[in-house]
Amino acid sequence: MADRLQKVQGMLEEAGLAAHVTADVDNILWLTNFANFVHERPFILVIPAQGVPRFVVPRLELDHVEVRHVGPLEVFAYAEYPAPPGRTWADRLADALPRAGRIGADSRLPTVFFNALGGRGKLCDPVEKAREVKSPYELGRIAYGCRLKSEAHDRLLREAHPGMGQATINATIGREVMARMVADNPNVNPYAVKIMTLIQNADVSHDPHNFTDLDMKMKEGGPHVTVFNSVLNGYGAEVERTFFLNRVPEAARRPFETMLEARRIVMEGMRPGRTLEDVDEAAAAHFRKAGLGDGVIHRAGHGMGVTAHEGPYIARGDRTVIQPGMVFSVEPGIYLPGVGGFRFSDTVVVTEDGLHRLTWGPETLEDLTLTGR
Amino acid sequence: MADRLQKVQGMLEEAGLAAHVTADVDNILWLTNFANFVHERPFILVIPAQGVPRFVVPRLELDHVEVRHVGPLEVFAYAEYPAPPGRTWADRLADALPRAGRIGADSRLPTVFFNALGGRGKLCDPVEKAREVKSPYELGRIAYGCRLKSEAHDRLLREAHPGMGQATINATIGREVMARMVADNPNVNPYAVKIMTLIQNADVSHDPHNFTDLDMKMKEGGPHVTVFNSVLNGYGAEVERTFFLNRVPEAARRPFETMLEARRIVMEGMRPGRTLEDVDEAAAAHFRKAGLGDGVIHRAGHGMGVTAHEGPYIARGDRTVIQPGMVFSVEPGIYLPGVGGFRFSDTVVVTEDGLHRLTWGPETLEDLTLTGR
Repeated sequence: MADRLQKVQGMLEEAGLAAHVTADVDNILWLTNFANFVHERPFILVIPAQGVPRFVVPRLELDHVEVRHVGPLEVFAYAEYPAPPGRTWADRLADALPRAGRIGADSRLPTVFFNALGGRGKLCDPVEKAREVKSPYELGRIAYGCRLKSEAHDRLLREAHPGMGQATINATIGREVMARMVADNPNVNPYAVKIMTLIQNADVSHDPHNFTDLDMKMKEGGPHVTVFNSVLNGYGAEVERTFFLNRVPEAARRPFETMLEARRIVMEGMRPGRTLEDVDEAAAAHFRKAGLGDGVIHRAGHGMGVTAHEGPYIARGDRTVIQPGMVFSVEPGIYLPGVGGFRFSDTVVVTEDGLHRLTWGPETLEDLTLTGR
Repeated sequence: MADRLQKVQGMLEEAGLAAHVTADVDNILWLTNFANFVHERPFILVIPAQGVPRFVVPRLELDHVEVRHVGPLEVFAYAEYPAPPGRTWADRLADALPRAGRIGADSRLPTVFFNALGGRGKLCDPVEKAREVKSPYELGRIAYGCRLKSEAHDRLLREAHPGMGQATINATIGREVMARMVADNPNVNPYAVKIMTLIQNADVSHDPHNFTDLDMKMKEGGPHVTVFNSVLNGYGAEVERTFFLNRVPEAARRPFETMLEARRIVMEGMRPGRTLEDVDEAAAAHFRKAGLGDGVIHRAGHGMGVTAHEGPYIARGDRTVIQPGMVFSVEPGIYLPGVGGFRFSDTVVVTEDGLHRLTWGPETLEDLTLTGR
């Protein structure tokens, strides 16, 4: 925690800011180990360029913050939301701000919080920036989650068969991930846990965020796509595959192979010194060349850390230069209505000379054509 | 949905606004029936003072939005987050805004979205305001969830015994609530579901938001406090009690009775025409008179609707006038380190001449001193 704070404070000094203000739960988790759920009561962290961070919280959560936070923290409690004048979150925020100087504020800070900075606010995102390159400790934690998810994903593929439903998967594989994590980490914080062990069948896999059928069933054929994105005790992990049961529809063969080749292009392209948008463009160009450009509806990957989904992004428009210690999902995909979705995802860490994979799974159409019982 | 839109548009016309902009998932759910999870890709709804709402969404979610939304909606899809200039969320938002006029924006709108309104933005919260008084349809949906939760809560109290753990409660009572809801509502949207069936024992019940021990166990004595706040198929419900197992510690008797009396004061005080802060102050004054004022760390209740936790609030500082059709939790509580927490919560709807209760549970110390097996 001390290293993290120092990293951010160094950036503030360099930018000539007296402090930075964030209300983002993930930034706050990363800097304090306190995980909360978002509700209407503000939690606002003020990071001064020097000295101890100040945390504006509701009185109600004082004990909870004391039990969970790590590292020095000065707490400023307001009465309630709302509260009478003099006892509100805005009053305590005013107490917590440095007397003079410009104050950085997260781009996504709620506008009413930004306005409470009294004209001294400047939008910027140093905490997100500081989170980009992971420490050895963080890499270890991420690798642990990736192992759990890969093992669960292996089990799913072993047990997959026509008729297997989402409710069954949750009750067996989902619960086992949870149970193992709790056994390994008795003090796990459920606010920093989100386990997804979902599948989409060919009826919906062309619509990758529509996993809203609570009893989705596997069927003969495919493509099925797994959605195994999770936060396990405070760190993200993702491993996903496209699979078939007993037979591969003819129309699915070329999109599958094209996606595999795009994935190879991204895996090979993720070298320190390149920009993320170049890598995404290379994958997109490959899909376009194959005549499948319209099926590209998302970027080739995203960052991972205390969330399972964060910047920087392997996306056109993201000019971040790739550095060792960054962690990403690699997941170029295509989505063809009437045929289905095609996506693998693996969690990877960038090293000096390429990528180290933290997740695993079958790699070929042959190995992913399962002989479901 | 048409009535809801009309209500908001009427408020915009009255305020002289050309449109209102919201990125709040609950406001969006209420106006479009589309539920999404918050991630970095913006979902921004532009409600013009007249005509069809415009929804700025990532290309990736186009099909998902089409499947789930109800009512007329014009969709503006941006390429991805981030994206190259000309294809970003900000470009599509610019397309979706009316050419001229002031534009309302939620107080909590992320600052970077507010800045994209180009100096025409004005902070205000008409959608939250429009949500305050519930329609008969909404009351029916809320009453349904309240019944499910009250039945589950009854079961918890019947089965409670020393050693009963949170994991068991989740696996039995929590799963049963989920299963019943799915059976009753085959098309339920899991993004609009959040089920909590938690307990706190006397070790932590003084710290009401610290329910982070995944295998919290019940113990002889108490006070135990239940945390039964849920969103069931898009509508909130809450019912909570303070209970004891086999014996009541002497130090717990007076706080329990004082809380009960505060609850009576709030229940009787919730009459159309009064302000919410008056009701909260009456409860707080009662606790102060009993010498327990330091134990009051939260307001006497909150609104309920498409969330299980929203404005207006039964809180000092909230000058909203109580109206028939508003729905609240009534839950004045006190929290005494070393003794524990004392809180009942019931979901109520305001009628012309008082309150109608939508949840139920035991009411007396005698009935809440359980002879755990």
